[in-house]
Amino acid sequence: MINILKKNNNDLIENLKKIAGTNNVLYSYDELYTYSTDSTNITNPEEIAQAVVFPLSTKQVSQIMQFAYKNNLAVVPRSAGTNLCGACLPKKNGIILDFAKMNRILEINKNNLSASVEPGVVIEDLQKAVEKYDLFYPPDPSNLKVSMIGGSIGLSSGGPHSFKYGTTKDYIIDLEVVLADGTIIHTGSECAKNVTGYNLTQLFVGSEGTLGIITRALIRLIPKPESKRVMLAYFDTLEDTSKTVNDIISNLITPSVIDLMDNNTLKTVESFYPSGLLIDKTAALLIEIDGFKSALDSQYEKIIEICRQNNSSFIQTAATKEEEERIWISRRSSFGATAKLAPNVLTEDVVVPRENIIKLVKGIREICDKYQLKTCIMGHIGDGNIHPNIALDLRNINEFQNFRQAKRELFELALRLHGTLSGEHGIGCEKSEFITKALDINSIKLMKQVKQLFDPKNILNPGKIF
Amino acid sequence: MINILKKNNNDLIENLKKIAGTNNVLYSYDELYTYSTDSTNITNPEEIAQAVVFPLSTKQVSQIMQFAYKNNLAVVPRSAGTNLCGACLPKKNGIILDFAKMNRILEINKNNLSASVEPGVVIEDLQKAVEKYDLFYPPDPSNLKVSMIGGSIGLSSGGPHSFKYGTTKDYIIDLEVVLADGTIIHTGSECAKNVTGYNLTQLFVGSEGTLGIITRALIRLIPKPESKRVMLAYFDTLEDTSKTVNDIISNLITPSVIDLMDNNTLKTVESFYPSGLLIDKTAALLIEIDGFKSALDSQYEKIIEICRQNNSSFIQTAATKEEEERIWISRRSSFGATAKLAPNVLTEDVVVPRENIIKLVKGIREICDKYQLKTCIMGHIGDGNIHPNIALDLRNINEFQNFRQAKRELFELALRLHGTLSGEHGIGCEKSEFITKALDINSIKLMKQVKQLFDPKNILNPGKIF
Repeated sequence: MINILKKNNNDLIENLKKIAGTNNVLYSYDELYTYSTDSTNITNPEEIAQAVVFPLSTKQVSQIMQFAYKNNLAVVPRSAGTNLCGACLPKKNGIILDFAKMNRILEINKNNLSASVEPGVVIEDLQKAVEKYDLFYPPDPSNLKVSMIGGSIGLSSGGPHSFKYGTTKDYIIDLEVVLADGTIIHTGSECAKNVTGYNLTQLFVGSEGTLGIITRALIRLIPKPESKRVMLAYFDTLEDTSKTVNDIISNLITPSVIDLMDNNTLKTVESFYPSGLLIDKTAALLIEIDGFKSALDSQYEKIIEICRQNNSSFIQTAATKEEEERIWISRRSSFGATAKLAPNVLTEDVVVPRENIIKLVKGIREICDKYQLKTCIMGHIGDGNIHPNIALDLRNINEFQNFRQAKRELFELALRLHGTLSGEHGIGCEKSEFITKALDINSIKLMKQVKQLFDPKNILNPGKIF
Repeated sequence: MINILKKNNNDLIENLKKIAGTNNVLYSYDELYTYSTDSTNITNPEEIAQAVVFPLSTKQVSQIMQFAYKNNLAVVPRSAGTNLCGACLPKKNGIILDFAKMNRILEINKNNLSASVEPGVVIEDLQKAVEKYDLFYPPDPSNLKVSMIGGSIGLSSGGPHSFKYGTTKDYIIDLEVVLADGTIIHTGSECAKNVTGYNLTQLFVGSEGTLGIITRALIRLIPKPESKRVMLAYFDTLEDTSKTVNDIISNLITPSVIDLMDNNTLKTVESFYPSGLLIDKTAALLIEIDGFKSALDSQYEKIIEICRQNNSSFIQTAATKEEEERIWISRRSSFGATAKLAPNVLTEDVVVPRENIIKLVKGIREICDKYQLKTCIMGHIGDGNIHPNIALDLRNINEFQNFRQAKRELFELALRLHGTLSGEHGIGCEKSEFITKALDINSIKLMKQVKQLFDPKNILNPGKIF
């Protein structure tokens, strides 16, 4: 339920306007209501911010934090709002910092293999910009056409390419951060290789804006792979699918992508976006290899051989750019396609050591069947990272209760299999109640002390993670 | 000067013997004196520990920390003592924890691409053990035949392969850590992909034992490259050398190694270990490419073409395993060979963004010439990370004063070139006086607060980093 603000906000609004300019502050009820939602899509907003500000500079962010610190106002940083864990929902009113207007790529440096960016840069824009220099920024969350670098640092987002290339955390050299009281710091240096002092950079990456506000990032880039090849291999059993993954890696091949789509995903995606997916198969692996053209043929042949040995019943290889694109659209449609099954889709992000992947996938299916939830299971099987996309009607209290219960059992399953709550989506306010099950009590105590140290007034994105 | 302990140590020794066993505690003056040195080799020991303990288990480490915490005793973790920044020298007496007897590889898990190890495992032993499973642990500090994983995590060591593969920090999934008061925590999970809570793992990596004692690590492994090729390209100017590096990378090639040896290094190494190095050249690049055999030919040819375009006067390619080995022995001999020039060798570890590498190398030469220091310059040019190996006689006060002054100017140069104090060796007590020049004051303040939070009694490796 929205806690409608009764108190007079005039002072706050006037101050924010003075800092960021009249046109960069929102405060009407309708606008604020919109900012009480994000892609998590799970509950009605419980809280509403008092103002939304579009800062234009680090200095403005610092001034806003000084004001917020003095007045004990919560501050929630937000970029595109595409996160799936409620990471940028206001929980204690306060101010939302929308970074949409701090969206400049400040430098792309080919010799240093780096780019300097503001938080509001859209990930795909960064990827395209660096591609012109034959460089590559690998992290590729599914929503990269809209999601922004600031949020992806806050959550250490991954994506299909994480198996070979790692997640956002592996591409951050240095951060400019505004602390709770408005102090501006740099966490690292301009050198990717650096052991001068503690690694504050990685403490801020994935901290969901709870320790400081990221206002600039120095991004590590790598040379662009010369070529790639994309294929889809179908299997009749999960055991064959999983063994194929292990065998590919045992043969020293590190695919740039090795993703799983289960039968429900194949059927749902094919009906949403007909592209020739085989809907009678138990599972498909989307495999992409990249690198020098000269190395792809032998890897490709080896992969085909391994798939056949493991009883793959059909293998499609993209022969053209268009076919490649079609396979990728299918894969990236899985969330959207699931939305055709019911008014809402909720997605989870559990991860286990890869040796337990079959138990995880089968367990997810059992849990979702038990609670009669329409579920498409897909994800990054190479990383042991699975996303069940669950279609339901949130207005149906029964269904929602079933979802809550299934979610609890899902996390318990992942933890039993030596896994954890999130591989790449974050904790936010949606999984915070489960964190005591995932981390040991002393580790959480230490994390909370770190939070207390960095944010003694608990104004930085309160109500998240813990 | 050694601060010889006058106080009665009996209680301490008896307690440590009770915890770790009679045979696992050293306390004679001679033994303790030995433990007041490490490979940094820069000053006579100033302090001496009260006891050295060889813990056998995490539980024992926890008991020792409980005891130390109660009695305000400094604790210095130590593995092979091969560090080059005084990271494991006792500065406040206390206890040295020598991890030589916690040296088990507990598991190598091929499906999870991970290994679980104790801190005393020798790096090369780990590399050889995982190689049997066709797996690869890339970090390769020059002293890997003796240096241990615990120390390399504490300092986030790198090595020649860092250009392509990153440093130790990129291979740590989870740490078991004993905190100042003896509490045992795990920092991560068993999954390499994990955003559940703050990244405490990376806060401990590179913290030189000042935040907690690492007692176990879950290491990330990757599939072993199928093949490699090693070559040496010689140049008459640094400009050509540096342009070659940039051109190789611009051609989308990421060599597994791209190291520089200057003329002094070539001459010194060749006279120490004659292997046919060309001693009249200004510089040589050691270039290694790895990956699938099928991809090496075209990369190799491209690299040769680039070297020629940039006026490389001679290119040697290892045609056999033996020739490869010979090139590598030359390269790894640079520190040892420099020791032939004078009784002592001191090495530095400055790093700059690669675009400033020529200015760095030339500047180092100028500074060392000015102070008449015999210096061999080599390092990881791809990373912008240069090691000047400086030969001198530490008994000669004049020479030592010159070294101190040169070192100061060296750091000032690196910082002017947007670089920092250390790429892979750490800060220890040897560079701590310079850290205020490298990091902004608010960043240091925050780091010190983190130290205070984790170690309120300042008993964990005191006197290091800050």
